[in-house]
Amino acid sequence: MSIRDARALVFDVFGTVVDWRGSVIREGEALSRAKGLTVDWPRFADEWRREGYGDAIARIRRGEAPFELADALHRRKLGELLARHGIVGLSDAEVDHFNRVWHRLQPWPDSVPGLARLKTRYVVAPLSNGNFALLTNMARHAGLPWDCILSAELFGAYKTDPATYLGAARLLGLEPGQVVMVAAHSPDLRAAQALGLPTAFVSRPFEHGPDGRAAPPDGSFDLVVNSFLELADKLGC
Amino acid sequence: MSIRDARALVFDVFGTVVDWRGSVIREGEALSRAKGLTVDWPRFADEWRREGYGDAIARIRRGEAPFELADALHRRKLGELLARHGIVGLSDAEVDHFNRVWHRLQPWPDSVPGLARLKTRYVVAPLSNGNFALLTNMARHAGLPWDCILSAELFGAYKTDPATYLGAARLLGLEPGQVVMVAAHSPDLRAAQALGLPTAFVSRPFEHGPDGRAAPPDGSFDLVVNSFLELADKLGC
Repeated sequence: MSIRDARALVFDVFGTVVDWRGSVIREGEALSRAKGLTVDWPRFADEWRREGYGDAIARIRRGEAPFELADALHRRKLGELLARHGIVGLSDAEVDHFNRVWHRLQPWPDSVPGLARLKTRYVVAPLSNGNFALLTNMARHAGLPWDCILSAELFGAYKTDPATYLGAARLLGLEPGQVVMVAAHSPDLRAAQALGLPTAFVSRPFEHGPDGRAAPPDGSFDLVVNSFLELADKLGC
Repeated sequence: MSIRDARALVFDVFGTVVDWRGSVIREGEALSRAKGLTVDWPRFADEWRREGYGDAIARIRRGEAPFELADALHRRKLGELLARHGIVGLSDAEVDHFNRVWHRLQPWPDSVPGLARLKTRYVVAPLSNGNFALLTNMARHAGLPWDCILSAELFGAYKTDPATYLGAARLLGLEPGQVVMVAAHSPDLRAAQALGLPTAFVSRPFEHGPDGRAAPPDGSFDLVVNSFLELADKLGC
């Protein structure tokens, strides 16, 4: 079966669909202006992402910590980072609002027009470790035209656990071979591929900042593209 | 708190958002023309809905049958009804396609424009006993602008089980009092209301056919309207 015969495309979100780093930095800089703060926001964003999300999810995946939602993981680390970076005087409501910056991440320029084209032929959905409400709110904020929201929360397990990829196919009423995993991260794609999902690697050279370099695909994927528009071209949408 | 301060609206679907009866009859009549059949499609539709869905779900709710998806319940009854109505000679693929008429139900005329207005201020989602794939496919087919799909399948329980209403609020990251249940059926609304959800009754006089009469609301609900457009008016959207 050709990848074009698939029925659905599921997308990694943080880094693949949205620019988490640039979005956190922008909201941080706005907070700095409003409150008269001096903060190294790029460093703050990188620490929040790596320690608060990546490391925390890795512990959950290894069974060293119970399953918790991304919102809660982000909120706990945010408290630590505010202290580490000397940010004081925010109200609880202001801290909670800033924690929800992850619900307000901005899409890459090609994400919305690319998804709109892909949606004409395929069911399109996120398949993200972000929690269900985070992904739902993000879609409204960023105008992402998802057909449904698929979150690790629905499966009580984080990618790259097989329960997430297989659970997505099951909820869509499809076989794994009918669901393409789209991501900018090779480990995500390799895990999906091992379960029979077709795979599309999207290069996102600026995920880690303007000086970043594109990580080449580490694996043999069905498609390798530079944008969702190129993905739509290759899938005939 | 006023109902206007809610953050999300969740909708019963079969009968409230879409005209299941008219849609099944129309596809049945098209099948009759294509195959040279003579079938009482209104009776067929009513039996399919009542025996295949309503009765089956009632048995599951009473614990007399294991949880099964609406697609499977529909498919089993469809086999019986084809025999009962003397419909023979359909291939398995044709029967499966006809079973998926429930994925292709047509919205009431006000559903899509009403949801589009309501979506400007509220998260809008189905909260239906239809399975996740059915609701996802229906949204694509009917152009329903949901923000996410909430299905009884996600909770392993059918409305009016409290797990469905409370599970919807939990996935949306909201309190029950922030999630309005919208339905044309009073038992659905009373069950939601008992758990603290605000409620909106929508009159759908033609759910059971052109000779049907509007069932008046059986309960005391926060809003009683005749269409999603009137609901949008009352909610200031």
